[in-house]
Amino acid sequence: MAIRVQDILDQLIEPIGRLDVTVDTLKSGDPSAEVKGIATTFMATHHVIQKAIDLGVNLLITHEGTFYHHHDQIELLLNDPIYLAKQKLIEESGIAIFRFHDYWHRYRPDGIMTGLIQALDWSSYVTENRPAASLLTVPAMTVKELAEYVKSKLGISFVRAAGDLNAQCTRIGLLAGYRGGGRMAIPLFQNDDVDVILAGEGPEWETPEYVRDALHQGRKRAFIALGHAESEEPGMKYLAEMLTSKYPDLPVHFIPEKQVFQSI
Amino acid sequence: MAIRVQDILDQLIEPIGRLDVTVDTLKSGDPSAEVKGIATTFMATHHVIQKAIDLGVNLLITHEGTFYHHHDQIELLLNDPIYLAKQKLIEESGIAIFRFHDYWHRYRPDGIMTGLIQALDWSSYVTENRPAASLLTVPAMTVKELAEYVKSKLGISFVRAAGDLNAQCTRIGLLAGYRGGGRMAIPLFQNDDVDVILAGEGPEWETPEYVRDALHQGRKRAFIALGHAESEEPGMKYLAEMLTSKYPDLPVHFIPEKQVFQSI
Repeated sequence: MAIRVQDILDQLIEPIGRLDVTVDTLKSGDPSAEVKGIATTFMATHHVIQKAIDLGVNLLITHEGTFYHHHDQIELLLNDPIYLAKQKLIEESGIAIFRFHDYWHRYRPDGIMTGLIQALDWSSYVTENRPAASLLTVPAMTVKELAEYVKSKLGISFVRAAGDLNAQCTRIGLLAGYRGGGRMAIPLFQNDDVDVILAGEGPEWETPEYVRDALHQGRKRAFIALGHAESEEPGMKYLAEMLTSKYPDLPVHFIPEKQVFQSI
Repeated sequence: MAIRVQDILDQLIEPIGRLDVTVDTLKSGDPSAEVKGIATTFMATHHVIQKAIDLGVNLLITHEGTFYHHHDQIELLLNDPIYLAKQKLIEESGIAIFRFHDYWHRYRPDGIMTGLIQALDWSSYVTENRPAASLLTVPAMTVKELAEYVKSKLGISFVRAAGDLNAQCTRIGLLAGYRGGGRMAIPLFQNDDVDVILAGEGPEWETPEYVRDALHQGRKRAFIALGHAESEEPGMKYLAEMLTSKYPDLPVHFIPEKQVFQSI
């Protein structure tokens, strides 16, 4: 029996129940189309969409929005040549693009975090999974060693670190995506006695500056910004693995992207 | 005649007129105290406050908030040992801390941008100063060379760059602080034909991803994130120079901080 785009979406949403307010909608394509192939990705860049089409995929599941805005505000882009060329590719190919952001974060544990923890090979070190954060106790190492470990496991070329790189750390607070701000990160230092927080990104005047003041007062805390995509892409790879098990007869791909930033 | 804290604040606010809604308020200290010395800084970190006190300063002018939040929400911090130790230092010293953010950005040209452009030695290359952005045409160089130039002029150890590092660039859009998001940056590419945008920081899924798609389509655009403090600190140094001219009988200091992040 043919599997339709809407069937896959329904299955993905089912563990959470339909949310009234969500960015997770079908952005393009026909929900009744028969699925020929699925791809997952962190963000449906022009390159990723082209690659999906080349692979014969007609359902692309993306974590972030396609047009550089969390809430799909495209007013700014309506006459933009980059938007228009990307939109043309999407329309002419008929590819279905589904955003899977809010639901995936609401899985228990959070699907994005599960993928990140697996990529870091830290599943056995998790002491607690909370809705937005995971706590881990890893073998003691310096913050510098931790940064090098993470880079190597995630295959990324740089991270940004605040705090004392030579301090020993073992208690880790993990926050994916744009959860590196003070409201999410500081309570982990306060209440959970973490030594270091690993997050995607967050405002620079919040958590990093808190860590700076802590260090000045002799309290060894540290913060590592992995990069937003770098922290969430493994969770979309994990989604592809989950879909492969669920739909053994469908081709399922994970399409990675290069790091958007280089450190110079 | 003695110069009071309030006198300095009134003079700083005067070119703009009092704003009804602003984060620029006196955060601590006595407005009627006689000013013994002034310091300016990007952010009143614990280290900066201590340094100011050691220099005999009793009016510290900071661009960003003291407690890791743009709107001074300190509910999260009321029992936090780092907050409490910093607050104790402020109260016991009696130092006046004035935030000078909104007003300084509203100067024409924006005081923060003026300082940044001076630090980059680019004053003669400015083609237009707008409220939030400046446009410049600099001698042609590659994006990589531009990044190296900026690092050297600002004395910083790394920047993050998206786009083709080998592309030639000459038209620059300059955005300080947290103005690197799509809403501010993308129109400069669209309407002003800039080759590269230099900004403090901004959400990673916005401008950098727009640049990535542009490059994939053969349009050479680039984005360099200088760091928030790195882009705004020169504007607070420039403020110290302005205050030195205005108050020749008062000691005026600029207190720099180290980069909060290292790239690893």
